[in-house]
Amino acid sequence: MKTIGVAMVGYQFMGRTHSNAWRQVGKFFDLPFEPVLKVLCGRREEEVKKAAHSLGWQAYSTSWHEVVSRKDIDVVDICTPGDAHMPVALAAAEAKKVVFCEKPLANTLAEAEKMLAAVKRAGVLHMLCHNYRRVPAIALAKQLIDEGRIGTIRHYRGVYLQDWIVDPDFPRVWRLDKSRAGSGALGDLVSHAVDVARYLVGEIAEVTGMTRTFITERPLPGSTKRAPVDVDDAALSLVRFENGAVGSIEGSRLAPGRKNYLRFEINGTRGSLAWDLERMNDLELYVEEGPNSGFRQVVVTDAKHPYISAWWPPGHIIGYEHSFTHTVRDLLGSIETQKLASPNFEDGVKNQRVLDAIERSAASGRWEKSSAGPA
Amino acid sequence: MKTIGVAMVGYQFMGRTHSNAWRQVGKFFDLPFEPVLKVLCGRREEEVKKAAHSLGWQAYSTSWHEVVSRKDIDVVDICTPGDAHMPVALAAAEAKKVVFCEKPLANTLAEAEKMLAAVKRAGVLHMLCHNYRRVPAIALAKQLIDEGRIGTIRHYRGVYLQDWIVDPDFPRVWRLDKSRAGSGALGDLVSHAVDVARYLVGEIAEVTGMTRTFITERPLPGSTKRAPVDVDDAALSLVRFENGAVGSIEGSRLAPGRKNYLRFEINGTRGSLAWDLERMNDLELYVEEGPNSGFRQVVVTDAKHPYISAWWPPGHIIGYEHSFTHTVRDLLGSIETQKLASPNFEDGVKNQRVLDAIERSAASGRWEKSSAGPA
Amino acid sequence: MKTIGVAMVGYQFMGRTHSNAWRQVGKFFDLPFEPVLKVLCGRREEEVKKAAHSLGWQAYSTSWHEVVSRKDIDVVDICTPGDAHMPVALAAAEAKKVVFCEKPLANTLAEAEKMLAAVKRAGVLHMLCHNYRRVPAIALAKQLIDEGRIGTIRHYRGVYLQDWIVDPDFPRVWRLDKSRAGSGALGDLVSHAVDVARYLVGEIAEVTGMTRTFITERPLPGSTKRAPVDVDDAALSLVRFENGAVGSIEGSRLAPGRKNYLRFEINGTRGSLAWDLERMNDLELYVEEGPNSGFRQVVVTDAKHPYISAWWPPGHIIGYEHSFTHTVRDLLGSIETQKLASPNFEDGVKNQRVLDAIERSAASGRWEKSSAGPA
Amino acid sequence: MKTIGVAMVGYQFMGRTHSNAWRQVGKFFDLPFEPVLKVLCGRREEEVKKAAHSLGWQAYSTSWHEVVSRKDIDVVDICTPGDAHMPVALAAAEAKKVVFCEKPLANTLAEAEKMLAAVKRAGVLHMLCHNYRRVPAIALAKQLIDEGRIGTIRHYRGVYLQDWIVDPDFPRVWRLDKSRAGSGALGDLVSHAVDVARYLVGEIAEVTGMTRTFITERPLPGSTKRAPVDVDDAALSLVRFENGAVGSIEGSRLAPGRKNYLRFEINGTRGSLAWDLERMNDLELYVEEGPNSGFRQVVVTDAKHPYISAWWPPGHIIGYEHSFTHTVRDLLGSIETQKLASPNFEDGVKNQRVLDAIERSAASGRWEKSSAGPA
Repeated sequence: MKTIGVAMVGYQFMGRTHSNAWRQVGKFFDLPFEPVLKVLCGRREEEVKKAAHSLGWQAYSTSWHEVVSRKDIDVVDICTPGDAHMPVALAAAEAKKVVFCEKPLANTLAEAEKMLAAVKRAGVLHMLCHNYRRVPAIALAKQLIDEGRIGTIRHYRGVYLQDWIVDPDFPRVWRLDKSRAGSGALGDLVSHAVDVARYLVGEIAEVTGMTRTFITERPLPGSTKRAPVDVDDAALSLVRFENGAVGSIEGSRLAPGRKNYLRFEINGTRGSLAWDLERMNDLELYVEEGPNSGFRQVVVTDAKHPYISAWWPPGHIIGYEHSFTHTVRDLLGSIETQKLASPNFEDGVKNQRVLDAIERSAASGRWEKSSAGPA
Repeated sequence: MKTIGVAMVGYQFMGRTHSNAWRQVGKFFDLPFEPVLKVLCGRREEEVKKAAHSLGWQAYSTSWHEVVSRKDIDVVDICTPGDAHMPVALAAAEAKKVVFCEKPLANTLAEAEKMLAAVKRAGVLHMLCHNYRRVPAIALAKQLIDEGRIGTIRHYRGVYLQDWIVDPDFPRVWRLDKSRAGSGALGDLVSHAVDVARYLVGEIAEVTGMTRTFITERPLPGSTKRAPVDVDDAALSLVRFENGAVGSIEGSRLAPGRKNYLRFEINGTRGSLAWDLERMNDLELYVEEGPNSGFRQVVVTDAKHPYISAWWPPGHIIGYEHSFTHTVRDLLGSIETQKLASPNFEDGVKNQRVLDAIERSAASGRWEKSSAGPA
Repeated sequence: MKTIGVAMVGYQFMGRTHSNAWRQVGKFFDLPFEPVLKVLCGRREEEVKKAAHSLGWQAYSTSWHEVVSRKDIDVVDICTPGDAHMPVALAAAEAKKVVFCEKPLANTLAEAEKMLAAVKRAGVLHMLCHNYRRVPAIALAKQLIDEGRIGTIRHYRGVYLQDWIVDPDFPRVWRLDKSRAGSGALGDLVSHAVDVARYLVGEIAEVTGMTRTFITERPLPGSTKRAPVDVDDAALSLVRFENGAVGSIEGSRLAPGRKNYLRFEINGTRGSLAWDLERMNDLELYVEEGPNSGFRQVVVTDAKHPYISAWWPPGHIIGYEHSFTHTVRDLLGSIETQKLASPNFEDGVKNQRVLDAIERSAASGRWEKSSAGPA
Repeated sequence: MKTIGVAMVGYQFMGRTHSNAWRQVGKFFDLPFEPVLKVLCGRREEEVKKAAHSLGWQAYSTSWHEVVSRKDIDVVDICTPGDAHMPVALAAAEAKKVVFCEKPLANTLAEAEKMLAAVKRAGVLHMLCHNYRRVPAIALAKQLIDEGRIGTIRHYRGVYLQDWIVDPDFPRVWRLDKSRAGSGALGDLVSHAVDVARYLVGEIAEVTGMTRTFITERPLPGSTKRAPVDVDDAALSLVRFENGAVGSIEGSRLAPGRKNYLRFEINGTRGSLAWDLERMNDLELYVEEGPNSGFRQVVVTDAKHPYISAWWPPGHIIGYEHSFTHTVRDLLGSIETQKLASPNFEDGVKNQRVLDAIERSAASGRWEKSSAGPA
């Protein structure tokens, strides 16, 4: 089998999920190429060396600049905090590599647009890792919607709730630092709910929203000194879709008991769908069929369900990280066919436009359009 | 035992729930007075006569004008569509009767304010029937919040979803006629979610919202002729509470599979609460207690839970209509002590101010304040 | 409307539920007769007098002997502890009254058989109050089974779990006294699960079982003196149905957190049904329809569902006591048509045969047949 | 790091789960040894060759006889159908290898006892792969029980329900052939519920049970010819534990809608636990704490929960196969410390004794003891 060389930049949480996906994909799916985990990049030598070993990379480097232009590298996978997405992506595109980037595409809309322009100019394939599209239950929801099972969609309600920073003494890590993360719950959580909305419902035309920081100071990591928090703890919005549907989208990191609760409910003219990430193998489906209708829990583990035939028999559930494996499989398919997969940098720009509109609305107090022409 | 004479105006759905409450309350609660169901009022003689018999009223009348000033009547209970609330309440107040009114208080804020002024001027007791406050699980939620179990509240998410008009051929009944009902999902459903929010979280300072009519024409009842629908099918809003909490409130009559799904989730600094009306005897409670915390389902049927000692042993659930019985019990308690119970016409005005602000925001596209000084 | 005179014996928990049913039935259902709550019987004058008033009976008596033969009494409703069922039923039958008896029919099989013989000899109508058959969700389950929606039944799993006597200092009330109650969880709880099994699946041919008393001594009520507990805390069995289905049936009063958890799951060749009493308005239905099948939660509150049209709109749930009201409605229907309703004393005998077989099996350690010819 | 050479026999479903575990364990856990996937054994050369490649094994062999005595092999992992467990295990023990065997240990109690004798005689380490013990929720349940959180256990209810052979035309695969599989639901499913019971509650003293084959003939694989089915579709039992607890254990492959529904409920003197495999990351915990107690859903994904710190942040769930990875980690720990881990072949024998007792009871109609002295 032909091989394909992969370099990855970043090795924290997302570096771990992506590495697992690269290692596992060939063990469960028939692939057009065998991915080779060539080199892992990071700034701190000791740490990246250790990570490269434990995550299964052949080598490590402290210079992504050098790596992204190496001849044996076909794909550059960007797993850094948001502030480094743009420089790596621009260099990789220029070096004619396939660019695979963790969400959100960038810390600002302007950066995202530059990144999209760069991959287009370079004519390279690109993909954005909004992994939840490839949770089988969400992929099944998409199929059911496309088949018309729930009719024309009228309502979308999306929340992404977590509680990991409820403690006011939780330190001001990079995700709480605007210069690194771009925003708080907005870019981290709301962006996921926006991607699901765009995938399942359609483009968002305009929004009205607000952001909120409840805990405005936190200790710096490893210190008792407190520093201001300059990102949002929560972001809320109402949305109007281009197709006439309406909805609400919210993210919060201050919802006790909600560990990783990305949830949506969609109501169409003929039925409804609901789902949440903490029970990600179940899809709740309502189809109007008279008095004995009811929300049914489809355990999305049947061989006919998306991606499942690669795994286990019915009822043997899969985990969070499998959604990354599915994404990498489809990236490899995109490379084989040379056809752009979704979501890609266009989706990243469109997503960012929604986030940007929420931020503008939070400032203006008005509805703000999320788009201004094609991405 | 002293008796108390009750007259009721209206005998449809709400007339049935209130009648049941008046009949049942003395069979389960120790009361300061025995309510006597004196007379039921309605416009159509045949129907009101029949209803009086089947609902347990001693007599009927086609003139509420006459009835509300009768000497043997102590309480006037208003169960008509919204357009008749004001005239009956004004007359009852002038006649020095206790006025008990089904929600929403009125079809417009102006009417609601007149009604409040009237009961204040007359110095009579008044109460608004937002029955869900007296679902034991909601009353328990209030207790837990007041005891600080979930800390300071930051988030409220309230929806009230139904699906009874999903069929576009469902007729344009009075609830879909602005001149009778005042509004659609807004007054009918959102008002409940607003009352729960005000009860459990606090006063709403400002809102941004939208309303939406998806099905703009429907057949007139018993006819094939179609008439425009001039009320909203759905109303959505974001809200800021005076105490700093933020939230969203939505009502829709077009959510397939949601039959009567009033649901809220509240997140505080130390815990969370969630509840829905279709499983109204369960309260979901999360209290942060370390890794083995989790949302627990409290089956709110313990003798120590609000209102429950009157009913059955643990696990023997009660139904929708019991919330009205509890409301009437507390109305009778209010009459005994001559202290105003909640919710009352002040709550009705404040609630209407929120609805009014949502309507204004739907028109202006801006945040609108829900209040302008004390009710 | 013709009236029908009712006398009731007993006024504790079951007296309260039956009284409510008699009062409410005519307010919600069209009836062939108006039941008149003539007289409530009990041994302790002060208490029965008070109960008669609060439960809505016209008079009280301390002698059921006198009452059951009164001319103005048409129905005798027996709500006493089990040890008094037989004498009252025998006298009522002899006096040619309709006999309505709370479950279990008797404390022993021998008593139950005498009671059945008595009503047959007297040629009077009789009915047993196994109220759960008339929970709408269970009545709907019956309809779905009869329509073949889940095919031929292979498995029944029934449990009835409570936790009200987990505390070893809970007193030895009459339900824990064999001379009054006949048995413990067996007659109180297992009998319900057996009735549901017989109603939904079919006759039970044989059983193997065990009983268990975990807490063997308890304080006498109002005393510190402890007395032995001579009834079972839990009873477990495996069952073979005449039609070839197999199953398990268990009752326990020592299951912390299960307040009133009568639950069953039924598996047929084409689908499954599950239900529990703590969420009694929901029926879980699985119909095999390919990969997107799933257990659906039918909120059994549609006007087309059994008994529901009398009550509220969809999603407005009913409570525990409504199942008694439905039972009384059907008893009145039986009186109108003079056709025996189910369950009746034959069912009571058959049920008792199953309980008796479990007790025999608990002693013998073998499978025991539950029947010996027709009841 | 020292390496450890692994040979695996069998490459079907269990071969895939074990291979994944061997590949993944070192990527997520700090290990004392690096496992090297040396050789995969199977009878059909073409298939085993292909499987060795896709599952990540360095080589393949069609002769396990040769392989199990190779010097570079430290661990023999047995993943074949049950009829091959004994010969491989005996040879591996004799060759002084660590023997790791998929459950059930053997097709009969006699075989299981021989296997235990062999590993004891050889003085080698052994482990049985009852993977569900290492689902974090079950490991947490064990911790909570050991800490006394639910008090002394009184009740265990275990079922393992699937529906994959509901279709009567589903072929008679090896799992439906007594000569290969030993039994049907009994060895395949009930054995899991027995292992969970033994792990969480204690040793089972005696049982009464039955087995049942509903579909007695099925087509041979790839043929229209039908052959008799000589294994059970379902097996049911009541059990008495040595410590006084009582319970029921059942397995069925004919429960429509239950895909992989291993469920238990345990009631103790102070609380209860419940869990099911289809939502394997949730543990339902009830602790008696007064009226506001309730079953809580612990999302078992906290870093402090068993095995979880190796994986993802809270709320990011893991899948079915992770339980095998945890098992392999603990096997490696056992090799490091040279202390026998659980479950091992002793557990396998004890488990088989329970299954054997159920089979004997199914024949005798009596309670049968599950043990006769130490394993």
